[in-house]
Amino acid sequence: MSVSTGESVFDWIDTRAGARAKAGLTRTVRPRAAHSTDLDLASNDYLGLTRDKRVTGAAAAAALRWGAGSTGSRLVTGSTELHTELEYELANFCGAQSALVFSSGYAANLGALMALSGPGTAIVADQHIHASLIDGTRLSKADVVVAGHCEVPRITHALATRGKRRALVVTDSVFSVDGDLAPLADLVATCREHEAALVVDDAHGLGVLGDGGRGAVHAAGLAKAPDVVTTVTLSKSLGAQGGAVLGPSRVIRHLIDTARTFIFDTGLAPASAAAALAALKVLREEPGLPERALTVAQDLAFRLRENGLPASTPSAAVVSVRAPSAESALEWSRACRAQGVLVGCFRPPSVPDQVSRLRLTARADLTEADVERAVRVITETGASAGAVSRPR
Amino acid sequence: MSVSTGESVFDWIDTRAGARAKAGLTRTVRPRAAHSTDLDLASNDYLGLTRDKRVTGAAAAAALRWGAGSTGSRLVTGSTELHTELEYELANFCGAQSALVFSSGYAANLGALMALSGPGTAIVADQHIHASLIDGTRLSKADVVVAGHCEVPRITHALATRGKRRALVVTDSVFSVDGDLAPLADLVATCREHEAALVVDDAHGLGVLGDGGRGAVHAAGLAKAPDVVTTVTLSKSLGAQGGAVLGPSRVIRHLIDTARTFIFDTGLAPASAAAALAALKVLREEPGLPERALTVAQDLAFRLRENGLPASTPSAAVVSVRAPSAESALEWSRACRAQGVLVGCFRPPSVPDQVSRLRLTARADLTEADVERAVRVITETGASAGAVSRPR
Ligand SMILES: Cc1ncc(COP(=O)(O)O)c(C=O)c1O
Ligand SMILES: Cc1ncc(COP(=O)(O)O)c(C=O)c1O
Repeated sequence: MSVSTGESVFDWIDTRAGARAKAGLTRTVRPRAAHSTDLDLASNDYLGLTRDKRVTGAAAAAALRWGAGSTGSRLVTGSTELHTELEYELANFCGAQSALVFSSGYAANLGALMALSGPGTAIVADQHIHASLIDGTRLSKADVVVAGHCEVPRITHALATRGKRRALVVTDSVFSVDGDLAPLADLVATCREHEAALVVDDAHGLGVLGDGGRGAVHAAGLAKAPDVVTTVTLSKSLGAQGGAVLGPSRVIRHLIDTARTFIFDTGLAPASAAAALAALKVLREEPGLPERALTVAQDLAFRLRENGLPASTPSAAVVSVRAPSAESALEWSRACRAQGVLVGCFRPPSVPDQVSRLRLTARADLTEADVERAVRVITETGASAGAVSRPR
Repeated sequence: MSVSTGESVFDWIDTRAGARAKAGLTRTVRPRAAHSTDLDLASNDYLGLTRDKRVTGAAAAAALRWGAGSTGSRLVTGSTELHTELEYELANFCGAQSALVFSSGYAANLGALMALSGPGTAIVADQHIHASLIDGTRLSKADVVVAGHCEVPRITHALATRGKRRALVVTDSVFSVDGDLAPLADLVATCREHEAALVVDDAHGLGVLGDGGRGAVHAAGLAKAPDVVTTVTLSKSLGAQGGAVLGPSRVIRHLIDTARTFIFDTGLAPASAAAALAALKVLREEPGLPERALTVAQDLAFRLRENGLPASTPSAAVVSVRAPSAESALEWSRACRAQGVLVGCFRPPSVPDQVSRLRLTARADLTEADVERAVRVITETGASAGAVSRPR
């Protein structure tokens, strides 16, 4: 028997790559330099805090003082006093009973869903939830019902027909691709009518929505609700890296005991924990920042629509602009970049509905001139990409 | 109909918590201070680089220069030139064709397994693989066979009987709990005989095993193999946070296009990327460090066995010492901590075999006096915990 050298084992990858290339779905990593004159409408740095000296200074000081890594699982050596302080401040700021920090928002979502459900339980999920929540439902071993996008009647129906099982309703607060809002009040009402818990991913709400940026869950009056669990990320408005779960103390203690992505993962790096802490402090000192990001988003969307572009009406800091096709979305975003304006390009499979679009994020630190430049470039390039329907 | 206030929805958690408390399985987060005189045998900072000034200095400088966070997905704004440099250096150091950096080792494992298998493929996994690999196999939707611990004949049988499906054999190189080694040469041989790919998690091998710490896969001569994919973490020997996948360039390009934890996760924080880069540089400059960690581990284990303790014979920098029960393991580790020696305490469900143990990690920067102190404290407290079988 001739033993192979393993050369052909990954040949299937080339076939797949060929098919993706044909469909225009090949992705490219495009490293950026430390300093650039590009106008960034693609990051999730909604408040512009990632480069804020108070935030970067805190990160640098923490690396020097605490070390570059946390050295182990949060349950072994990976918890520092910084992590505790961050958990205290996060809970306090968002009005939750307790908080638990994870190494990423992705890990927080996986850990929360696995720990709060399981075989024999039911998860009813909005169709547009973030990939990390989808993976969490898959790992949970629960019976999962995907119930349309923001369709409360279908969610209610799924809850009403689940039998005696424990149930969890899972949603984003601000949906990441289009920036639209979940009907949190209706969701919690149906949860309470049907004795289900509600898990809300407030990744794009924290720092943008609610009183002083306390998030969509706080805005809905649910921060201290005994039946609501909130997940957040430290990597967007807070400008750092990491994630957290906020909720009733018994839920947080349960996560410490059982959440796999907490137990079996190295703790968040001290620099990232300190950066998020510093960003929370900035938010307290400048409670007008979130409002500013919202205003910029609304302004941006209004002007793009005025120019005949199919821009969403933003409820948070995300503006989405539909493109005719995946190819034209890519072409459009490249044309913007060529003119120094960075925009997100979301195509299948990164979109929940097969519709490709540009995703623009507003930032609190964009100036009037920045917005004008962005609108001009996106409109001009949109015309060539076939996206402008009817100039008004 | 009276609508509930949601108070009782998480009552089941209290029941579970009660059961865990009875079984002695409640976990505690124990935050540490920035500076301590405790002797750390619990972290995974095998080379002592987390507090190394070259590493912390690089982390601090990167936070100031690049910002506290990467601001988005690696595919949108989250790739900096630092990430590219780190990927180049990692691949280069480990002898792989290419590398891709993730926000954690956990995320790297999930992303690699999901992208490299799928419905209709087969995964044959060692029984003791890390939790993140287990979650990866669950997310993969592949048919998963768990094939005993290091039992190559069972793995071979599973491969031989899988039919025409694509197959992936999945293993740790150094198993995280006991520190024992996978039979990589035998595994790759059976993979080649049966046209399967091999995925190796070298989290505890990188920086400890192989020429100058190039890892277990490099030591096995498989770094450039066309059918072997290696995952590593930046959070152990490299003292930072993050993870990476190393392997053939076509595999890495495939991950860029399809790995969910790459596409839908914020990029690694610049400070962590810079810290890992600096650690790699230290490893190149001080190629004797890994050997030193191994020597310390062997010395530690030898002396503990001399004192009648059931310590493992270390093949890497991990020494495991079996405890009579989960309760006594906890008591033992607490007694060590009370005397200023930090050891890991691994109990179900964090152990693959229901056996509780102390997990000691050697560090390259431990002195002769440190080892003596550790052996004395662990032995004395082990006697009270009923772990010393026969003092010789
Ligand atoms: C809605 C949502 N949830 C979770 C995440 C994951 O958070 P992180 O990138 O911090 O892992 C993201 C984005 O990355 C997100 O958009
Ligand atoms: C074998 C192994 N793989 C993967 C991981 C996960 O790596 P990280 O902690 O960097 O997410 C760990 C430990 O945490 C590990 O021990």
